[in-house]
Amino acid sequence: MRLAELSESSGVAVATLKYYLREGLLHPGQAVSRTQADYDETHVERVRLVRALSEVGGLSLSTIGRVLEVITSPGQDWITVLKTAQRALGSGNDNGSDSRDGSGPDLARGPRASAWLSARGWQVDPTDPLIDDLERAWAACESVGLGLDEGRMNAYADHVEGIGEVDVDSVPTDPEGAVRQVVLGTVLVDPVLAALRRLAHQHISVSRTASH
Amino acid sequence: MRLAELSESSGVAVATLKYYLREGLLHPGQAVSRTQADYDETHVERVRLVRALSEVGGLSLSTIGRVLEVITSPGQDWITVLKTAQRALGSGNDNGSDSRDGSGPDLARGPRASAWLSARGWQVDPTDPLIDDLERAWAACESVGLGLDEGRMNAYADHVEGIGEVDVDSVPTDPEGAVRQVVLGTVLVDPVLAALRRLAHQHISVSRTASH
Repeated sequence: MRLAELSESSGVAVATLKYYLREGLLHPGQAVSRTQADYDETHVERVRLVRALSEVGGLSLSTIGRVLEVITSPGQDWITVLKTAQRALGSGNDNGSDSRDGSGPDLARGPRASAWLSARGWQVDPTDPLIDDLERAWAACESVGLGLDEGRMNAYADHVEGIGEVDVDSVPTDPEGAVRQVVLGTVLVDPVLAALRRLAHQHISVSRTASH
Repeated sequence: MRLAELSESSGVAVATLKYYLREGLLHPGQAVSRTQADYDETHVERVRLVRALSEVGGLSLSTIGRVLEVITSPGQDWITVLKTAQRALGSGNDNGSDSRDGSGPDLARGPRASAWLSARGWQVDPTDPLIDDLERAWAACESVGLGLDEGRMNAYADHVEGIGEVDVDSVPTDPEGAVRQVVLGTVLVDPVLAALRRLAHQHISVSRTASH
C-alpha cells in the first residue's frame, strides 16, 4: 500500500508517518520509484504500537525509539524486553530512566526494600530503580502511620505474585507483541486493579457485617 | 494548650488553624477568656487528620469538611464511613462525586462491569460510581487488544480480594481512624502494589526462564 493508504488504515496523518520514518520509529517501505514506496501489514502493526505506547503509555517519541531499538535487535531474551519496557515507563518520569540507567550498580539503594526482597527470595535486579520506587512508596505509608510492616508487605506480595502470574501468562512470545503487552498492561491494568480493590473493600465489609 | 502551642505540636501555622476553626474543620477549644481557648490532644489528632487528607489524599478543604461531617455524626456504621471516604476520593476528580451522588440510582451504569460483578457475587452498591470507573478501565484495556476477558478478570479479582482482606483487617474501629486508614491506605498503598507488581513480573520471568 502507498503512504496515503497506510495513513488511512492506521488513522495517523501522512505528515506524522513521514516524521516516524525520518526518526526511524517506522521501518522504510519497499521503494517502487524514486519518490514512492510500498508499505505492508508490518507497517500498520508498527504504527499501532507506536501510537499505543505514545497515547496510552504516555511515552515520548525518543523513549519509544529506544524501546523499539532494543526489541528489534536480534536475539533479545524476554527478561531484556521486560526490563526495557519497564525502564521506559520509569517511575512517572520519562527522563529519569536514562540517568538511572547510567548510574551503575548501587547495592545500597532502597535498603529496607532490598533487604525485604532478599529475605522473600524474589529474583530481581538489585540495581533496579523499581526498588527505589518501592522504598519511597513504603516510606510514605509509614510516615503517616499506616502500619505497613514486613508481615503486611508479605501478605500483599503473596497476592500480587498471583496477579503477576496472570499478567505473565497473557504475554505473547513475539518481542513486539510482548513489549506492547508489558507497557500497555502495566499502564492500563493498574486502574482496573485499583477499582477492583475499592469494590473488594465494599464487598468484604458488607459480607463481614452480614455475618455478625 | 493555647493555639500557638497547637500550632507548634501540629506544625500548622496559627493562621491556618484559625481558618480550620472558622470553616468547622476543627472543633472549638474550651474558652478560657473572651479571646483565648484551650486545646487538647483531640485537636492535635484532628489537625493531623485534616493535613493528611489534604496533603497526601489530595482532597480539597470543602471535601474534607463533608467527610468530617459524616464521620462525626453519631451512630455511623462502618459501611457508611467507607463509602464516604471512597466517594470523597472519587475517580481522580474532586468535584465529580457531588454530581454523581445526586444522580440517584441508575441500574444501567457500567453494564458489562455490573453484570460481571453480579455473576461474581460481589456485594457492592449497584449505583456506585466505582462501577463506572471499572467499566472505563476495562474498556480501555479491550480497546488496545489486551485480551482482558471475564476469565482473566476473575483471576485478578481472586487475588485482589486477598489484598482487600489485608486492607480491611488493618482498619481501626474508631470512625476517625478508619476514614484516615481508608483514604490514606487507598491513596498510598496503590503505589506500593504497583511497584510490587512490576517486581513480581521480573521475579516470575526469571524463575520461569531458570526452570526451562
